[in-house]
Amino acid sequence: MPNILVTNDDGITAGGIAALVEVAREFGTVTVVAPDSPQSAQGHAITISKPLMVKKSKNFEGISAYECDGTPADCVKMAKHILFKNDKIDFCLSGINHGSNASINIIYSGTMSAAMEASIEGIPSIGFSLQDFSADADFTTSKTIVRQILSDVISGGDPPPSLLNVNIPNLPLKEIKGIKVCRQGNGRWKEDFQKGTDPRGQEYYWLAGEFHVDDDPSANTDLNALQDGYVSIVPSMHDLTDFPMIDKLSHLNSESV
Amino acid sequence: MPNILVTNDDGITAGGIAALVEVAREFGTVTVVAPDSPQSAQGHAITISKPLMVKKSKNFEGISAYECDGTPADCVKMAKHILFKNDKIDFCLSGINHGSNASINIIYSGTMSAAMEASIEGIPSIGFSLQDFSADADFTTSKTIVRQILSDVISGGDPPPSLLNVNIPNLPLKEIKGIKVCRQGNGRWKEDFQKGTDPRGQEYYWLAGEFHVDDDPSANTDLNALQDGYVSIVPSMHDLTDFPMIDKLSHLNSESV
Repeated sequence: MPNILVTNDDGITAGGIAALVEVAREFGTVTVVAPDSPQSAQGHAITISKPLMVKKSKNFEGISAYECDGTPADCVKMAKHILFKNDKIDFCLSGINHGSNASINIIYSGTMSAAMEASIEGIPSIGFSLQDFSADADFTTSKTIVRQILSDVISGGDPPPSLLNVNIPNLPLKEIKGIKVCRQGNGRWKEDFQKGTDPRGQEYYWLAGEFHVDDDPSANTDLNALQDGYVSIVPSMHDLTDFPMIDKLSHLNSESV
Repeated sequence: MPNILVTNDDGITAGGIAALVEVAREFGTVTVVAPDSPQSAQGHAITISKPLMVKKSKNFEGISAYECDGTPADCVKMAKHILFKNDKIDFCLSGINHGSNASINIIYSGTMSAAMEASIEGIPSIGFSLQDFSADADFTTSKTIVRQILSDVISGGDPPPSLLNVNIPNLPLKEIKGIKVCRQGNGRWKEDFQKGTDPRGQEYYWLAGEFHVDDDPSANTDLNALQDGYVSIVPSMHDLTDFPMIDKLSHLNSESV
């Protein structure tokens, strides 16, 4: 039985992690190490200026579970270096996030930062997200999808991919059209800030805004797959090099300054 | 004169941002929007659960400067949507960071998250980092390097690249061998946690560790360039898709679930 680390960014009491643990335990020995409070939009933040505390959690019956007062990436570091020590983590699963992490949201996402942190450590990882931000999101469909993907990735026999970003449309199972392996869509937040005045008369700005899709509707992207009722799987990586630009910028190379 | 937004993650009073502003103002009209306190290792965190405050700063003579109580990525969002409103930001410069952001450190880096946030908005951006973590790091050499790079990127006439990660070795100018445009090096933190007990008897863990290089010494990477005494420039991007894997995982595509 493989060792499976499960984490998330919505915190250890979220419905999404309970759903993920429920399916993951069918595939291996699950250990949960998750933030003790919600950590959405934390990106790949890690905690360096203060110590971290970790304690046993009773949130999951029959499973080793720990809550940590750090970020999702901190949880993975703690799991690997403190809790697992010399035991191997075979897979890391993060989520199921309450809300989409398609397109550039992979960059802001705590869910995906945890998965990416594990992938940097050589642990094959998958982040799962459901397109429903609500705290009481229904993960019934998601559990079926997660089971289908884990059957292939964990039990399928092929070498597992290093990092997958899986997003699930918020639809009943029978309305889901299928699964598409695709690229990260082009989109961005058209920000708006809610402007207000605090009780002490100071102006404040609260981040708001809506997501804007920049892709052609026929492109094989996660945004289009979700729009069409498909589950999207984007194979992802932590090498951010724009390789074609290395040659284009060769005039910047110099042997003196 | 182009409009240049300058930001960082070490906070508005850091020596590195003062050095960057000093050079940037030779190339355009500079506006500073930076965190009011250090935000290292914040990754691409953004602030969604509380409002942000921004106020005028008197830290830079003759320059519009603002400090914000958010993350580096928040500062860029605030600059674009509140402070610049309909004015165009032509370039975003972030840093000069106190400490290297080579290799995978781009992922943890607040400096690079600010630059990446601007690049997502279509603003050509450069993050600069000096390989010296100390608060009183000497930016004399860095200023010459920044000037040389901005002369090309801002004043050179070519369309500017969307995102550059520039790292500068901590050497006197005459010992710097030149500049290399290269790829992100493979490396990772071999973590260690300093374990201790707090005044109330609770165990804590404080992140520590050293960086481990996984690349062949002949590879054209930022880690090797820095090791050899060169300034490294890695053209970077926010599309994290691992394109070759899309085909390799095609067996996961399905028209039903």
